[in-house]
Amino acid sequence: MTADRAYLDHNASAPLVEAARGAVLVALKADGNPSSVHAEGRAVRRMVEAARRQVAELVGGKADHVVFTSGATEAAATLLTPSWRMGRGPLRVSRLLVTAADHPCILCGGRFPADAVTILPVDRDGLIDLAALEAALAAHDRDAGLAMVATHAANNETGVIQPMAEIGRIARKAGAPVVIDAVQAAGRIRLDISDGSADFLILSAHKIGGPKGAGAFIGASDLVMPLPLVPGGGQEKGHRSGTENVAAIAGFGAAAQEALAGLADMVAVESLRDAFEATVRSVAPGATIFGAGAPRLPNTTFFDLPGLKAETAQIAFDLAGVALSAGSACSSGRVGPSHVLKAMGHGADASALRVSIGRATGARELSMFREALLALVARQARSVTRAA
Amino acid sequence: MTADRAYLDHNASAPLVEAARGAVLVALKADGNPSSVHAEGRAVRRMVEAARRQVAELVGGKADHVVFTSGATEAAATLLTPSWRMGRGPLRVSRLLVTAADHPCILCGGRFPADAVTILPVDRDGLIDLAALEAALAAHDRDAGLAMVATHAANNETGVIQPMAEIGRIARKAGAPVVIDAVQAAGRIRLDISDGSADFLILSAHKIGGPKGAGAFIGASDLVMPLPLVPGGGQEKGHRSGTENVAAIAGFGAAAQEALAGLADMVAVESLRDAFEATVRSVAPGATIFGAGAPRLPNTTFFDLPGLKAETAQIAFDLAGVALSAGSACSSGRVGPSHVLKAMGHGADASALRVSIGRATGARELSMFREALLALVARQARSVTRAA
Repeated sequence: MTADRAYLDHNASAPLVEAARGAVLVALKADGNPSSVHAEGRAVRRMVEAARRQVAELVGGKADHVVFTSGATEAAATLLTPSWRMGRGPLRVSRLLVTAADHPCILCGGRFPADAVTILPVDRDGLIDLAALEAALAAHDRDAGLAMVATHAANNETGVIQPMAEIGRIARKAGAPVVIDAVQAAGRIRLDISDGSADFLILSAHKIGGPKGAGAFIGASDLVMPLPLVPGGGQEKGHRSGTENVAAIAGFGAAAQEALAGLADMVAVESLRDAFEATVRSVAPGATIFGAGAPRLPNTTFFDLPGLKAETAQIAFDLAGVALSAGSACSSGRVGPSHVLKAMGHGADASALRVSIGRATGARELSMFREALLALVARQARSVTRAA
Repeated sequence: MTADRAYLDHNASAPLVEAARGAVLVALKADGNPSSVHAEGRAVRRMVEAARRQVAELVGGKADHVVFTSGATEAAATLLTPSWRMGRGPLRVSRLLVTAADHPCILCGGRFPADAVTILPVDRDGLIDLAALEAALAAHDRDAGLAMVATHAANNETGVIQPMAEIGRIARKAGAPVVIDAVQAAGRIRLDISDGSADFLILSAHKIGGPKGAGAFIGASDLVMPLPLVPGGGQEKGHRSGTENVAAIAGFGAAAQEALAGLADMVAVESLRDAFEATVRSVAPGATIFGAGAPRLPNTTFFDLPGLKAETAQIAFDLAGVALSAGSACSSGRVGPSHVLKAMGHGADASALRVSIGRATGARELSMFREALLALVARQARSVTRAA
């Protein structure tokens, strides 16, 4: 992050925290493959196992139940599969229930055929329709296999937090395992995999201040596990083959430890986020803040500016030194209408800007954002005047 | 690598070269997601695209045809699939031909059902049985779909180089696409994807001096592509979703550039490898060097020590400061009989030590290896005398 920029896009990728950078640098100095039995191999293996404990601790889980992947998307593709094992026997999942506001890596259904995926509606705040979930589970024919529920803990665009305890209760009653994409929630709200609301959580290092290139899924137990997506040398107890990305995993561990400690700072982050929203409301009085009626992450705000396309505004902010996003950062720079807004019942022409911050964000960034917004709104007023 | 250690396990994981470390460190300083359109996003996107050109150049390919993955194992799992697309239409592959000496990530058949995988024999040097390949392709019923050939350019344990041109010629005649695991060959022998011997090459960063956590596959064209293994946000032109591991990819690019330049040093590496083999032959006259009758990589030697189990010898070497391997570094430290030796027709009790070196290996390492080997053989002689 340079001094003349305000980076307000933590939900796309959070800046690397110093502890994570340090862990990565140490790991990069170590030769060896974690599967090698010599001293070099054992040393890097210890780094991976230390990180496993740190990641588990962030969500109140057991290190033994953490499977490292290359990121959350791979973790989702691994978990969203019809083919599971319970102990040594096969277990079939014949239906996947997701919501229309999920991240593309959940919404695409992973390894399920398209006709085995049911997309549940969300309300105007982006919250899952619990009655629709209950009805879909009740209608499911369990003779063909289990139903599985996969959704997000918190939305990447709006920050809206789903009612995980309720989802878990409804799914458990129907015998349906629950996979929670906790990528945006981790390190921002407290997560506890032992509370019974989810069977698996998906995590990403680079959304909590770790490096890009590491993620994980963690189970409440390891009794029921998906058939591996990536077979081969048998790493990660056979659940995910391929030489471990030691440096990124070590950074992930350090970031997880920091993120857990940093939960205490989230009250301050929320106050700052509220100050961003107050700025939006005062400079652009007609702005809508999406999902404001629901519980939200402390670091995220998603809003529109009346009469301004988000993509245009995003470019103006960028030129003014403020990095924020119009929707989410997926699909290789392609900017399209937000499927989340559409799922929330807003028109196809609805567009919004996302400001997502972190513990390192401060008054400097807020001030830069305010200046840029003032300039943008003034320019818009002038052009409207000229056009009139 | 510390001064009191000799790291002779480059085929398990090569030490990070300085250029790659530098590229990783630069990338770690950059915030942003390569899919974001703001300045931060564009800056990290440029790093990914620069690395794409560097990786393509290593194998004489086009940057546009490189798909980055988390490593070679994921690349193999992506390519070894029955489900392909030619342009916008589906293309079916109904049979996969591999060899018994392939790496587990090839041998496991990826996404093919087990009964669609034919395992071809290799000879006593580990070379593919070309007649068996030709016969298997001739026997294949093309009405059910194409046959595909997947094997290694060079063996990870023995360093034996397969006759790629011949394999390509035979496969082309039968209309079978060829996937070559070039993980161990890259940077050690010249590879040229435009020579028609392979349709896809698989590469790994950490075997050529890059960081662990990045790999790629590169096609001779992008007309025929596998259905993605990891779906989601649509990165890598939809061929592999998930936020790119910018730092590891940047390091991969820098390592590829160095590896290409370093091909000129392979004559010297081969001389040093030959000196290791001369040492083995003089200190342990009954030693067998496996695959010595075939073309081999310049950096690898795989040998047994008469009367000594490789696992025991490996531990003795490690205690003496010499890191080498007994077989390959897979399956999380589990050491079992080498499937490669078995495929080459050696008994189930055959075991061997692998020394694999690089451009940074020198006389110091050779001397430490020689001392450790002398001590080991002397100890063995004493224990044999005592037992008599």
